[in-house]
Amino acid sequence: MSSCLPYRFSRRILSTPRSMIREILKVTERPDIISFAGGLPSPAFLDTAGVARAAEHVLSEDGCAALQYATSEGYLPLREWIAERYRIRFGLSVNPEDILVTHGSQQTLDILGRIFINEGDPVVIEAPGYLGAIQAFSQYMPEFHAVRLDDEGPDIAEFSETLKRTRPVFSYCIPNSQNPSGVTYSTGCRQELAGILEDTGTLLIEDDAYGEIRFTSEKQPSFGTLLPWENVALLGSFSKIVAPGMRLGWLCARKEIIDQAITAKQASDLHSNILSQRILYRYLVENDIDSHISRINSAYRTQCNLMLRLMDDLFPEEVSYTRPDGGMFIWLTLPEGCSAMEVWKRALEKNVAILPGTPFYTDGGGDHGIRLNFSNSDAEKIETGITRLAGVLHEDIGAG
Amino acid sequence: MSSCLPYRFSRRILSTPRSMIREILKVTERPDIISFAGGLPSPAFLDTAGVARAAEHVLSEDGCAALQYATSEGYLPLREWIAERYRIRFGLSVNPEDILVTHGSQQTLDILGRIFINEGDPVVIEAPGYLGAIQAFSQYMPEFHAVRLDDEGPDIAEFSETLKRTRPVFSYCIPNSQNPSGVTYSTGCRQELAGILEDTGTLLIEDDAYGEIRFTSEKQPSFGTLLPWENVALLGSFSKIVAPGMRLGWLCARKEIIDQAITAKQASDLHSNILSQRILYRYLVENDIDSHISRINSAYRTQCNLMLRLMDDLFPEEVSYTRPDGGMFIWLTLPEGCSAMEVWKRALEKNVAILPGTPFYTDGGGDHGIRLNFSNSDAEKIETGITRLAGVLHEDIGAG
Repeated sequence: MSSCLPYRFSRRILSTPRSMIREILKVTERPDIISFAGGLPSPAFLDTAGVARAAEHVLSEDGCAALQYATSEGYLPLREWIAERYRIRFGLSVNPEDILVTHGSQQTLDILGRIFINEGDPVVIEAPGYLGAIQAFSQYMPEFHAVRLDDEGPDIAEFSETLKRTRPVFSYCIPNSQNPSGVTYSTGCRQELAGILEDTGTLLIEDDAYGEIRFTSEKQPSFGTLLPWENVALLGSFSKIVAPGMRLGWLCARKEIIDQAITAKQASDLHSNILSQRILYRYLVENDIDSHISRINSAYRTQCNLMLRLMDDLFPEEVSYTRPDGGMFIWLTLPEGCSAMEVWKRALEKNVAILPGTPFYTDGGGDHGIRLNFSNSDAEKIETGITRLAGVLHEDIGAG
Repeated sequence: MSSCLPYRFSRRILSTPRSMIREILKVTERPDIISFAGGLPSPAFLDTAGVARAAEHVLSEDGCAALQYATSEGYLPLREWIAERYRIRFGLSVNPEDILVTHGSQQTLDILGRIFINEGDPVVIEAPGYLGAIQAFSQYMPEFHAVRLDDEGPDIAEFSETLKRTRPVFSYCIPNSQNPSGVTYSTGCRQELAGILEDTGTLLIEDDAYGEIRFTSEKQPSFGTLLPWENVALLGSFSKIVAPGMRLGWLCARKEIIDQAITAKQASDLHSNILSQRILYRYLVENDIDSHISRINSAYRTQCNLMLRLMDDLFPEEVSYTRPDGGMFIWLTLPEGCSAMEVWKRALEKNVAILPGTPFYTDGGGDHGIRLNFSNSDAEKIETGITRLAGVLHEDIGAG
């Protein structure tokens, strides 16, 4: 940048990685592209009629309150609904005062980075780790320490060693159907991690954006039930079960953390959109949300299984991948000598978009990983797209 | 905080002032309180029926797109509308690419602080200055330099001296009906300031949240027309002309600044609520927004004039105050020896809420100032409230 310009940018923003996902999503807006790159829910489960009814009720019955300024904490009935959901799902007893409504999980991550990270502070994250969290936290310039994910969760020995060595301000994880890997931590792994976290006095941030998107009846405990309450901050989102367009999620943690988060929320944008909070709340109480979630799960399970079956049939055997029991993503690992960026380029030439793994690694590695989304493509697109991708992989591995 | 807790908070959040406004607003939720403390628009101009119609149209015609993830830049038709508004209001030619839709002015301020401020950087602000901006910027730990406001705008000599001495990363101002003072910069003042800004190569952040709320036909130029385009960043908001509950505003600046702001927006909350963006856009094109704004202006003018007339008649002559030509606030200056905090306490005992001036000063001063809001009270409340406040002031000054 020329030095004569009347501004220069902060180190903070210059050290924040720009979201490759969003840049790639722009390409995928082309109608001829079959995209496994994004993380969009299926449009089939965006209940426009239900939301329209809820909106009509809110605006006709209490419209002024829905259009006026509101409190930073969020709409009380919605916070009560979230608290009750914790009780139903996990037997976890939390108060509405422990909940802050945010503009989606991304904002919750930003707020947590803001209230906890001083420059240079150690932060522990999964490898591969969630890109949105890496972006949010990067703004506050921590030192990332990544712990390798296995099929059952983070490598226990590496996790323990990393926590003891670095003494992080927090450890961040997505224990259910992790983004990008699709891995769900086993109960045994959770218990071991909880022991290490408690022994080392480490705060755990549990991001449960995909926790309700499950393909099995097996239930896993929230870290909120495995750790003392001062050791956890829980994140949730309505993006996967109702609609991402309303940008509504939450933070649930002990009051002292919520208090600082409210200060950050005030300084960020005063409060979350109250019209949407009220519409969302009406939608949740006027509709059978559990049946809605069951229908989402049934459809995503079918899409995931189809994708896995095609991959089993068509992919070179050198390519390995996770077999998710929920969520929206499958994670591919390419053999040595193959580059995910190369596969991305070649797949795009065949009008198939994937997401290369590099941005999910805080150390610049990860060129052997690829994230595939199955929630936003119907059976026909999955068949066509995976078949084309199999062709690219065979060429690439044959050439390698 | 006990050292055994598994967390401690960042210096950033501990140095962010908690919003006194929002704390005070909680008190004012009591129905027996007459509140001049907040900054709420009149509920009479929250057009619930119009918004309901717009919502119905959006959800029935393009509901899926309104509930799905969207681009960080914001809804293109809404950005086009904003660009056209700049052309109509100021003859300013901007492109939709120069506009980022945010979750309200507060988020725009947060984003600007984030992309420009390194710790310790000088920032120039008005004294008294807008509390929301002080909060947003404080998170990034700048060094504030406040320039005293006079009736026509900032003191020119002090402004010039401050810019030359501190070389700030930016200078922030609200030239139209400033919050909290109600002062509108004169055209001459704007021209002088523009000259100083250009000479010193300083970026100006113009916050125009109240620019459409005018009680005279006299028009003032935007700094966007007085400065080279790389010297300005313009903020706008729909909170005062449509509805604050939707939390929608914008940043308008040259592409290089918008690019960094988009990175910050992605890391903050991915994108602004697209359901509300589309509803707002439909509302703007389906209704006569200029007539709507005229009605707001007419009502607020009447409320402001009534408040000023009562103050002229009833207040002790030692109390001086601004005579706003727009916006939502009047600023009182108490004589030496009187404390605004004291007046606030005594007024609250009589069920009248005001906002003491201290939080509007970055140097801890300002205990002689009081902000009064006239937009959110009807004639009866203004008469009762100002009469009671006059009693408190007479007692206080009599005792002083």
